[in-house]
Amino acid sequence: MHLLSQSRRLRQTPFSQGVEDNGVKAYTVYNRMLLPTVFESVEADYRHLKSHVQVWDVSCERQVELNGPDATRLMQRLTPRNLEKMQADQCYYVPIVDENGGMLNDPVAIKHSEDRWWISIADSDLLLWVKGLAVGARLDVQVFEPDVSPLAVQGPKSDDLMAQIFGEEVRGIRFFRHKRLAFQDTSFVVARSGYSKQGGYEIYVENGAYGMPLWDALFDAGASLNVRPGCPNLIERIEGGMLSYGNDMTMENTPLECGLGKFCKPGENSDHIGKGALTREAETGPARQIRAISIPGDPVSPARSAWPLFKDGQRVGQVTSTAWSPDFGTNVSIGMVDANHWDAGTVKRTAIMGHRNGCDIAQL
Amino acid sequence: MHLLSQSRRLRQTPFSQGVEDNGVKAYTVYNRMLLPTVFESVEADYRHLKSHVQVWDVSCERQVELNGPDATRLMQRLTPRNLEKMQADQCYYVPIVDENGGMLNDPVAIKHSEDRWWISIADSDLLLWVKGLAVGARLDVQVFEPDVSPLAVQGPKSDDLMAQIFGEEVRGIRFFRHKRLAFQDTSFVVARSGYSKQGGYEIYVENGAYGMPLWDALFDAGASLNVRPGCPNLIERIEGGMLSYGNDMTMENTPLECGLGKFCKPGENSDHIGKGALTREAETGPARQIRAISIPGDPVSPARSAWPLFKDGQRVGQVTSTAWSPDFGTNVSIGMVDANHWDAGTVKRTAIMGHRNGCDIAQL
Repeated sequence: MHLLSQSRRLRQTPFSQGVEDNGVKAYTVYNRMLLPTVFESVEADYRHLKSHVQVWDVSCERQVELNGPDATRLMQRLTPRNLEKMQADQCYYVPIVDENGGMLNDPVAIKHSEDRWWISIADSDLLLWVKGLAVGARLDVQVFEPDVSPLAVQGPKSDDLMAQIFGEEVRGIRFFRHKRLAFQDTSFVVARSGYSKQGGYEIYVENGAYGMPLWDALFDAGASLNVRPGCPNLIERIEGGMLSYGNDMTMENTPLECGLGKFCKPGENSDHIGKGALTREAETGPARQIRAISIPGDPVSPARSAWPLFKDGQRVGQVTSTAWSPDFGTNVSIGMVDANHWDAGTVKRTAIMGHRNGCDIAQL
Repeated sequence: MHLLSQSRRLRQTPFSQGVEDNGVKAYTVYNRMLLPTVFESVEADYRHLKSHVQVWDVSCERQVELNGPDATRLMQRLTPRNLEKMQADQCYYVPIVDENGGMLNDPVAIKHSEDRWWISIADSDLLLWVKGLAVGARLDVQVFEPDVSPLAVQGPKSDDLMAQIFGEEVRGIRFFRHKRLAFQDTSFVVARSGYSKQGGYEIYVENGAYGMPLWDALFDAGASLNVRPGCPNLIERIEGGMLSYGNDMTMENTPLECGLGKFCKPGENSDHIGKGALTREAETGPARQIRAISIPGDPVSPARSAWPLFKDGQRVGQVTSTAWSPDFGTNVSIGMVDANHWDAGTVKRTAIMGHRNGCDIAQL
């Protein structure tokens, strides 16, 4: 592994002091912001996440705020998903596509009211796309990045920890719903959501000055629950089949290729930007699609680039995320496989056949 | 320093093999791509850059291509700089501003023809802004990221090295002009430009498959010139007063605040997006402005965040880039200072008064 040279351009977060005081060992950069990746070790962090409760600095899930009379109209142009029935306490996973149907981001949208939305983004400057569209089409809406930094509480003991800070009321929040709850002299939007399959919450911390007070309150309250700092865990997220924008799909891929067809039903949303392209693709079906893939044998190293996937000497796809899973006893991975090479079901097996140009090569 | 966890999302480049075979020690992440920061040491790399010739993997200067009948019209909407007299072999430094006059990027524009431009970008997804504007306003232009990865050759012996690869003709390219020159069975746009003050070129490598052949050719030819791999050097770029987007300015700053007023003459470009905001600002003058600042005394550490700058107990600005300069015998730095606290000229002195919240505090 190489060292990371830091500068203001790789933004710190309202929780960086807590993260570094707790001995973070490695970072990645996500939305030009520091995202922790390892505290004790990826495997020890994984074991702890599945057993206890962790506090994650996911400030890098920056928010794009749409504020004004055209906010809902613009929001609906951005995504193929039909938002008509969405209520003001709901979160929706919304693929965002361009005019070719290419994925620009796969964020979570938070509806505050018809005039006000947040989009909690994956790793691309979605702000610039949304703002460009609004300025280009002269819509009556302000688009900006508010001072909001999500802090996630994840793991099987999340409810118990959160109830100590926000009261018993927090337990009543349903999955992908949110509620505004008091903290000290302010209040935060709290959602039942997060980038793990272990259950938990995301707290949308408005005003960075409240970052460390909230961090400290969670660690003080959680001592008896064995709370620790954590971060999205490579092993757990691949086990759970959670996609990572930039890793498992890019602007070159459509939502249908990403297995997100249920959010793109033709005719459900007549005004979104990618409608023409996605309607044409739906008629023929996607040319390739994301698949969970297991790689038997010894642990492989995490993929630093897309590994070519071959079958009988022919390139039929790529492997994009890999990790050794102690619980599954195999390498879990995610890849994109050409349409003629899908088995029944979604799980494929593969074997590593060697290395070329510093990159592993897999075969079905 | 912390370790950097790598993944496909932090893109490798066509030259990564060469960079890693040559022992790169640290990276930063720039436009979601790996950018080397240290080979031997920042100071040794600096000394070598000023004496010999270096090859830099600056693939992270991604290109945004505008291609189609409305390309020039769109390009002129993006920037306050008047492009009317720009010729088809010129490069222009072009501040890109939003509707509030905020800087979205400070790239170099390369004109190929009236219908085709490249924008060689600093650290933001400018592609999304340009594409959003084009889609929103229904302009007749394709906007995309082509397979182009710049490789820079920088240092006093650049001409001699480049002439061995591209012929004597390369010496005739004037500053911020470009020419298409042959390499093997292809050709590249070669410009006299680069992110150092030591002279040199940027080669816009089309088709990543030519990356390592070009890298190897440069190192084979340059052995007698003491060629080494290098990268934008923190010390040299601050000594030269070269701004870094994301470090020294962000979307919160206008071009006038960045000292780029000469590219924003009112009345010269009637159709750019920030015209209203910048015209109003030009009447009153900017509220703050970038300044070169020297910090006497012992070497300070590179700024990881903006350091508050105080005068007589009052906050009057910030320091955003810092490095110890062996040649200047002082800490060189760049900061943004409020309008009432500029001395005559542009050079200020400051002193470090202590630490707070893990961040240095400076005072005038």
